[in-house]
Amino acid sequence: MMSAPTQSLTVSLGAPAHGARSYPIFVGSGLISTAVADIFNSVLPSAGKQILIVSNSTIAEHYLPTLIANLTAAGIEREHIQQALIPDGETFKNLTIYSEIMDVLVKHRFNRDCTIIALGGGVVGDMAGFVAATWQRGVPFLQIPTTLLAQVDSSVGGKTAVNHPSGKNLIGAFHQPAAVIIDIDSLATLPAREFKAGLAEVIKYGVMADANFFAWLEENMPLLLSRDAEALIYAITKSCELKARIVAADETEQGVRALLNLGHTFGHAIEAATHYKTWLHGEAVAVGMIMAAYLAVQQGYLARTDAIRIEQLIDAAGLPKYPPKNISNSEWLELMARDKKVKHGKLRFILPTGLGRASIFSDISSDALISVIESL
Amino acid sequence: MMSAPTQSLTVSLGAPAHGARSYPIFVGSGLISTAVADIFNSVLPSAGKQILIVSNSTIAEHYLPTLIANLTAAGIEREHIQQALIPDGETFKNLTIYSEIMDVLVKHRFNRDCTIIALGGGVVGDMAGFVAATWQRGVPFLQIPTTLLAQVDSSVGGKTAVNHPSGKNLIGAFHQPAAVIIDIDSLATLPAREFKAGLAEVIKYGVMADANFFAWLEENMPLLLSRDAEALIYAITKSCELKARIVAADETEQGVRALLNLGHTFGHAIEAATHYKTWLHGEAVAVGMIMAAYLAVQQGYLARTDAIRIEQLIDAAGLPKYPPKNISNSEWLELMARDKKVKHGKLRFILPTGLGRASIFSDISSDALISVIESL
Repeated sequence: MMSAPTQSLTVSLGAPAHGARSYPIFVGSGLISTAVADIFNSVLPSAGKQILIVSNSTIAEHYLPTLIANLTAAGIEREHIQQALIPDGETFKNLTIYSEIMDVLVKHRFNRDCTIIALGGGVVGDMAGFVAATWQRGVPFLQIPTTLLAQVDSSVGGKTAVNHPSGKNLIGAFHQPAAVIIDIDSLATLPAREFKAGLAEVIKYGVMADANFFAWLEENMPLLLSRDAEALIYAITKSCELKARIVAADETEQGVRALLNLGHTFGHAIEAATHYKTWLHGEAVAVGMIMAAYLAVQQGYLARTDAIRIEQLIDAAGLPKYPPKNISNSEWLELMARDKKVKHGKLRFILPTGLGRASIFSDISSDALISVIESL
Repeated sequence: MMSAPTQSLTVSLGAPAHGARSYPIFVGSGLISTAVADIFNSVLPSAGKQILIVSNSTIAEHYLPTLIANLTAAGIEREHIQQALIPDGETFKNLTIYSEIMDVLVKHRFNRDCTIIALGGGVVGDMAGFVAATWQRGVPFLQIPTTLLAQVDSSVGGKTAVNHPSGKNLIGAFHQPAAVIIDIDSLATLPAREFKAGLAEVIKYGVMADANFFAWLEENMPLLLSRDAEALIYAITKSCELKARIVAADETEQGVRALLNLGHTFGHAIEAATHYKTWLHGEAVAVGMIMAAYLAVQQGYLARTDAIRIEQLIDAAGLPKYPPKNISNSEWLELMARDKKVKHGKLRFILPTGLGRASIFSDISSDALISVIESL
């Protein structure tokens, strides 16, 4: 894997006069063991010495010693590095665990010039990011996403959050990382099911924003599934570029950024109906994209052949194609009405309007929704 | 009180390209009963209909019916207005109550286009602001501060927070209100002790930023203590102007904004040592300013006559002049070391360098601190 060169790109946000609003994303092999301290010193030259690494026990076992070795070798003293390991799983992304991490910061007297490092998947990144957003009204943080899903989605864009028992990500803040460090070697230990779930978001970028990338994915899906280093670096870099472009245009989700939620209104409903336990986020989004595609066909916005290509690519990635059978029509409507994308009481759907294109629609009737739900 | 005309000023933040970053402050009489709905419609023309009013039971009893009557008279339906009353007192500004307010938002299906209104003192404003900062990653909020302290200090500047058992405001975010509505009529029911505590922050602006205002306060303190409407509107507007100017220059407290913490390093130590129970924030700040003034004299930055004038004005406002006797020297140093203003492990003090001037100093020795503490 060492042969593929590291790629980097920059996310640019806001007016230049507003200060440090851009950050780099590095995508490569071996970055955790060789590059984190250098990147830390380069992007946060005036940071203090205190570092809190937020991770979970599974990830920590594989990568935490390597990360700490890299930091201490660069002169950061071991005693200034603290860790907070959170249990694995979306259900632990809650205010109780958040409060416990705050206790660690208080206990070790962390100041306003400390740095938070997120080492893990989306749960770790969202949680560490929300801690960084709200510890002493905001401190810098570095994202080291270790799952494909986090690498191509949650680590880029500055969304941080915890869940409420009644809904995902209801509590959170926008807080941009100082840098995102994507080490594809961390994918070596990722279970196949989680890897495929990450591919759902990769496919999403092709569907909503880049027809060429969609075609590349159709061609290279077997290579990606074999976790070929070059293919991974290409797909991750391309996904980050597409997300970064959209985030830069709309940092706080007033407009075009909503398009990133393609597949998510249906997907969140599936996750909520199954209590965030049996479906992975990416799996729910995969089915959500198929549902959005066929809703777009039914509404006359998308050719059926394009919907079929979307469904086939999702199938080729080994992702589920159908929602769980035990959600009633009224439960679907109820769960979708609770979605954050509701505006002025109206459900909003992101629908593909071609391969590489999507738009927001808010005039979909309940009958139309139910007919698509029942057709699958 | 109705004779004094409403004053207004604007807080301007960030580069114009960055969007809606300015907000108005209105200071006048009768605003809760006549002006809130108009201001709401004017500053948030595209807001949804859902409004959550965060208040406490004491304040709610006096002003909540009036506020709701004003909103409903303007066409906002009563069923869209919810309320969350929090217990009175700094100890309730915690993550537990925060989480309970989030539950209210979830229960009533609040969307991303809702508005939060803070009706109360600093605890209500900080809490409601932090809820607004983090509900669905940020929704707009209006500040209606009803204590003098909140009117001249916490409602302006976008600082929101809750306390950690180990320290005040350790958890929070920067989130600017859409407007601040200061109705001086709400001061009619404010207990004398709390009113005087608010005067401490008013005096602070004179000490750190405006010698003429300091002289005006020396002359008009009896009028202010009698709660004369015109004097109040002048002093509050002037305080907000001075704070707004500093906040605009330094929104996220990287530099000059730290000057607003004059008296606060000592003050926070007093509050922490007494567990936020026996001293009001303004009382602690008043003593903290006197300590800072005499520390400045000892360090050679301030004339003794100026320190005496500061002490006399604080005395004239009926505020305490001496810290509690039962804090040991080591406890003082320990508590101040925990202060948020610690940077790179060094204590930083804001000291007056003349009337209307202050600077940051980070080279104060423990011996110097102890000699000032012991002299009082």
